[in-house]
Amino acid sequence: MSEGTAPSAGEAAAVADEAARERLRYLRGSIDNLDAALVHLLAERFKCTQQVGELKARHSLPPADPAREAAQIERLRRLAEDARLDPGFAEKFLNFIIDEVVRHHQAIADRTLSTQNGPADG
Amino acid sequence: MSEGTAPSAGEAAAVADEAARERLRYLRGSIDNLDAALVHLLAERFKCTQQVGELKARHSLPPADPAREAAQIERLRRLAEDARLDPGFAEKFLNFIIDEVVRHHQAIADRTLSTQNGPADG
Repeated sequence: MSEGTAPSAGEAAAVADEAARERLRYLRGSIDNLDAALVHLLAERFKCTQQVGELKARHSLPPADPAREAAQIERLRRLAEDARLDPGFAEKFLNFIIDEVVRHHQAIADRTLSTQNGPADG
Repeated sequence: MSEGTAPSAGEAAAVADEAARERLRYLRGSIDNLDAALVHLLAERFKCTQQVGELKARHSLPPADPAREAAQIERLRRLAEDARLDPGFAEKFLNFIIDEVVRHHQAIADRTLSTQNGPADG
């Protein structure tokens, strides 16, 4: 805008839009950082469930544990509420992960003992 | 087992089973810790996308950004490979999150400007 004159509506809008785009870049940077952290935590979680699957296959431990799973869901819903995350979404998220774990455990069980059912421990 | 005698096969199996159950408890403790961290990171991520949704609704910024989304997927797949997580799963995970973000943004857009389409920025 020219010195000493009030900005036109168009100029003001352009400044506001540039500020919005800058804020958008800032927020996207945070989202990317959080996504990197999420991927690494998920990798670590699957390392744990991989070991659980191998342990269960080796020791003929029961494949599924409904009480454990119910407790996990209850706990995650509670944690989500504290963090102001939709508890329904937290439960959906856990089920999404467990589906993948079950697939991994199935593969382990197929490799380890072809006579045994695939153990699930999300 | 009795002192000075070799353990019976049954005793040895019982000891091995108890060790396996102890290891299972240990691994489940790690899984629970990681789940708590995941829920809190997800809560933080939705705080960011909530702000993105409000920003886009206020400034009439384009709702979707296919180039941004493609870059996010590409980056997450790369990070997953480095962390030895299935890149296909990382992509599925991002899509799962983005579906939820789109639902949130739709709600924001409905509240903010009923004439505008819901902005998506996963």
